Amino acid sequence: MPTYLGQNQYGKAENRVVKITRDGTTHHIKDLNVSVSLSGDMDEVHYSGSNANVLPTDTTKNTVFAFAKEHGIESAEQFGIHLARHFVTSQEPIRTARIRIEEYSWERIETPGEDEHSFVRQGQETRLAQITYDGSSWEVVSGLKDLTVMNSTNSEFWGYVKDEYTTLPEAYDRILATEVSSRWRFNWSDDAQQAPDWEESYAQVKRHMLLAFAETYSLSLQQTLYAMGARIIDHRGEIDEVRFSLPNKHHFLVDLKPFGLKNDTADGAVYYAADRPYGLIEATVLRDGCEAKIPVDLTNL
Amino acid sequence: MPTYLGQNQYGKAENRVVKITRDGTTHHIKDLNVSVSLSGDMDEVHYSGSNANVLPTDTTKNTVFAFAKEHGIESAEQFGIHLARHFVTSQEPIRTARIRIEEYSWERIETPGEDEHSFVRQGQETRLAQITYDGSSWEVVSGLKDLTVMNSTNSEFWGYVKDEYTTLPEAYDRILATEVSSRWRFNWSDDAQQAPDWEESYAQVKRHMLLAFAETYSLSLQQTLYAMGARIIDHRGEIDEVRFSLPNKHHFLVDLKPFGLKNDTADGAVYYAADRPYGLIEATVLRDGCEAKIPVDLTNL
Amino acid sequence: MPTYLGQNQYGKAENRVVKITRDGTTHHIKDLNVSVSLSGDMDEVHYSGSNANVLPTDTTKNTVFAFAKEHGIESAEQFGIHLARHFVTSQEPIRTARIRIEEYSWERIETPGEDEHSFVRQGQETRLAQITYDGSSWEVVSGLKDLTVMNSTNSEFWGYVKDEYTTLPEAYDRILATEVSSRWRFNWSDDAQQAPDWEESYAQVKRHMLLAFAETYSLSLQQTLYAMGARIIDHRGEIDEVRFSLPNKHHFLVDLKPFGLKNDTADGAVYYAADRPYGLIEATVLRDGCEAKIPVDLTNL
Amino acid sequence: MPTYLGQNQYGKAENRVVKITRDGTTHHIKDLNVSVSLSGDMDEVHYSGSNANVLPTDTTKNTVFAFAKEHGIESAEQFGIHLARHFVTSQEPIRTARIRIEEYSWERIETPGEDEHSFVRQGQETRLAQITYDGSSWEVVSGLKDLTVMNSTNSEFWGYVKDEYTTLPEAYDRILATEVSSRWRFNWSDDAQQAPDWEESYAQVKRHMLLAFAETYSLSLQQTLYAMGARIIDHRGEIDEVRFSLPNKHHFLVDLKPFGLKNDTADGAVYYAADRPYGLIEATVLRDGCEAKIPVDLTNL
Repeated sequence: MPTYLGQNQYGKAENRVVKITRDGTTHHIKDLNVSVSLSGDMDEVHYSGSNANVLPTDTTKNTVFAFAKEHGIESAEQFGIHLARHFVTSQEPIRTARIRIEEYSWERIETPGEDEHSFVRQGQETRLAQITYDGSSWEVVSGLKDLTVMNSTNSEFWGYVKDEYTTLPEAYDRILATEVSSRWRFNWSDDAQQAPDWEESYAQVKRHMLLAFAETYSLSLQQTLYAMGARIIDHRGEIDEVRFSLPNKHHFLVDLKPFGLKNDTADGAVYYAADRPYGLIEATVLRDGCEAKIPVDLTNL
Repeated sequence: MPTYLGQNQYGKAENRVVKITRDGTTHHIKDLNVSVSLSGDMDEVHYSGSNANVLPTDTTKNTVFAFAKEHGIESAEQFGIHLARHFVTSQEPIRTARIRIEEYSWERIETPGEDEHSFVRQGQETRLAQITYDGSSWEVVSGLKDLTVMNSTNSEFWGYVKDEYTTLPEAYDRILATEVSSRWRFNWSDDAQQAPDWEESYAQVKRHMLLAFAETYSLSLQQTLYAMGARIIDHRGEIDEVRFSLPNKHHFLVDLKPFGLKNDTADGAVYYAADRPYGLIEATVLRDGCEAKIPVDLTNL
Repeated sequence: MPTYLGQNQYGKAENRVVKITRDGTTHHIKDLNVSVSLSGDMDEVHYSGSNANVLPTDTTKNTVFAFAKEHGIESAEQFGIHLARHFVTSQEPIRTARIRIEEYSWERIETPGEDEHSFVRQGQETRLAQITYDGSSWEVVSGLKDLTVMNSTNSEFWGYVKDEYTTLPEAYDRILATEVSSRWRFNWSDDAQQAPDWEESYAQVKRHMLLAFAETYSLSLQQTLYAMGARIIDHRGEIDEVRFSLPNKHHFLVDLKPFGLKNDTADGAVYYAADRPYGLIEATVLRDGCEAKIPVDLTNL
Repeated sequence: MPTYLGQNQYGKAENRVVKITRDGTTHHIKDLNVSVSLSGDMDEVHYSGSNANVLPTDTTKNTVFAFAKEHGIESAEQFGIHLARHFVTSQEPIRTARIRIEEYSWERIETPGEDEHSFVRQGQETRLAQITYDGSSWEVVSGLKDLTVMNSTNSEFWGYVKDEYTTLPEAYDRILATEVSSRWRFNWSDDAQQAPDWEESYAQVKRHMLLAFAETYSLSLQQTLYAMGARIIDHRGEIDEVRFSLPNKHHFLVDLKPFGLKNDTADGAVYYAADRPYGLIEATVLRDGCEAKIPVDLTNL
């Protein structure tokens, strides 16, 4: 046979599991989208169609729902750890399990009454988690996507290379806006280590990310990106690596001179928010002494 | 000619205008998506291609951006009123202007410093406004879409018609979740009338909508819908009509019996959040003595 | 009660039904997305939550799948007629049924063997049908969406109104591109009339629409729109009304003068395909003596 | 500083370039979405905001449009090669350029006349190309996405592992449907080698992919995937590696027994086309002696 099988994986993607926990009339909600991906001794199913080593994707779906009942959902990361451990330890042909989770957050609707069972979806960003287990060590990468932020000033762009195709004028006061997609890797890798408080860690990473974005006087989106990553690593000892994919959501000052109107950034500036094309800035920030493991291309799930 | 021209309209859709207003180091942002639609004496352009009565859609785009500078954006509704009046009064062949606006809301990123120019997009819902002017009277319809809400209890569904295709078991404790799309029509129609405070009105309508959703013990999504609309009309004298399109975002209790697990609603219930198909409940609630004018099918822009 | 209930309707939306019919080893496929909407004597469910008149949306879903088996799917329109008749005639409180259908088309994958059970989804456009029945008369509206077409020449735009916000230069050779969304209404309304051949009618309407787009030397998109509608009505006696919503998908000649390059339409022109904003041209074309019934705003489902 | 910069890249994404070439009254169209990503000596812009080594993303956009005029667009791959070579050779700090391209295909609208300037977008799949150049060697990966295919029979699934969470019944005649996302890597890497005929290669790869899908009697989607990849490598000497990401688009036989209807696959079977969750099968097929270079996670652009 002149061909052979390379990396392969399979499982059930996008299991939409919602769990409601009741504390008297106060309810709590966890709302996840869970994707399972398994790999191991799977050559035969590719070569001959023998399913002798294949746990059906339907079974991996059932396991997600059953585990939500049996183990609860303390956090997306902890839930993924339960699932990954189960698949690797319960089925000999499965060597590695990777669980990817999207989490949607809900706020309470405040009412005059005492019941607390009403929610409105928050919608600001989608939380992400990826848990990988190979039977001996863990890799946990958390993240977020669709977090749209803007500084309406304190951004410049000048002093760049100019070649024969350069027409862009330098800017000394511009809008800087981006839709943050980020992933960060924990240094927890071993059951013997104390695991982080996943919920608290997420809240703090998001807080530092927003603060670094807001407080950086920016000469380039790359500089802002690096400040965001460095601040996270400086403040959160449990994290060794942060990667960002930051589209530069361009807001162009509209030329209103043809209508006798001055439109500069001094006050009341009017911008056109462009769709495409957009600048795209991507980079990894690492703790000194640590190596990169997050892939160059971020994927949503 | 055996055919003739019926209703027609044209304009530039989805002009993405962002305005930043500075109050010292405190900045304010308005972020709109504005669509212009004009109609009037436009037969010839359809029959022969003569553009003699056609103000280019490009011009309507320019007008949106110039007006954001000249008149500011006090509210989406007020901005639409400026635009609609301009088109109808400045060009004789244009008899009616309809302006549709989506508004995206931003929260401040709180920082220790005093500057206030950093924002994060809120994302909970998209605000909508439609302003129509025919030279003599106004119709203003405001609205929202993509507001996702859930009650984790206090919802039942039983006592319904059963025919030969009915298999649904009755439910005495279920999740009720929907993604609200709503439009409400103001009774302001005349420049001589005092116009509503559009910003305050929007905030209060959203508040009453959420409270009615949360506080209604629901025997059907139709009942909840009606309660939401009636509460708005009861509390907001400026509004005569509310229409809703409410998908029933089904959350099905997962059958875990094959795995020896009990999964009822008492506590820790696990649900599967379904995509399609979904129930779709649509209705209009009206103030006594008023007639419906909002179309049966809601459109986003 | 100071409020009352206006127009209302409900049902199960987006039932994804696929039917495979076998003719020996040659298989045929129908792939539909069916939405049911019922209205009638439904005041009580809104006012008090009594479901006594409510056929569950789950039942309407079951009916769609059962009818696909019992009656087959001769065409989207015929399938919708079966469903609408059933709901109105079988349940006294239901006075009107509206069935909306999206249809996805598949081509055969040609193989050297004799079996014909392999398909590739065609993807050019989505076919639409809406069937409404009130117990006495029928309204059938068919349509399509997402049909993207382009003329790379034979389009001009000049002679338009110029006001103080007009900056657009006149164009004597431009690209004309649009993504057609169209609906057309049949004059069949009565069981006593011979119904059209729905499949043949759809194919011919699409053919005439494409030919009129291609063959019209266009002075405005409005003129092209009218030519498309008029040609359909001229050639298809079963159709009385056609409505279009045509976004003007702008292709702008890129200014390459800064790089010493001439870029005109003579040959090898380079265009930038813009996303937003876009012109939006909407109109109805009617057969003489007929009245318009298709709503001004087209909705997808 | 306790942190350092890892992999980073930047450029302008999603430049929508359309080129019309005229051959008398016969026009030809190329419709691309081009994303540029550059990397090299870029530490300072991240650490201090110095743009001294940064060619603006706006310049990379201008270059895309100017090159479409200057060099033409023979194929997506050839166009990407021109661009990548330019960026790496013209700017010393840029060490690597990666160009990603989506291509949209158009068919002619056949008319009775002789002019050929009317097109309808084809829509079956989106063609992809990624060209990477580091100044010495090339990597070209082509691909496609959104190609939806179905076999209505000749698919089974049985003989799989059963654990305590397995409830799936075995299937001996099922629908097999997937939406193919695939990437394939060429062994051309050096300017001294004869480059492939990129257009012919794409057409043949797609043909073999479809034929292998249609002609494989499938015992698992993994087996079908491998057959598709192996057939491409067997027939196309210019390709060493193929990766697939294949969602199993489940079509479930509807249980119609409650309505007294038999619904098996013998004839006229009715299926429910599910959205989520879905099986997801991913694997790489390699030519003997070659190593994998395509990342595990496929990204769209």
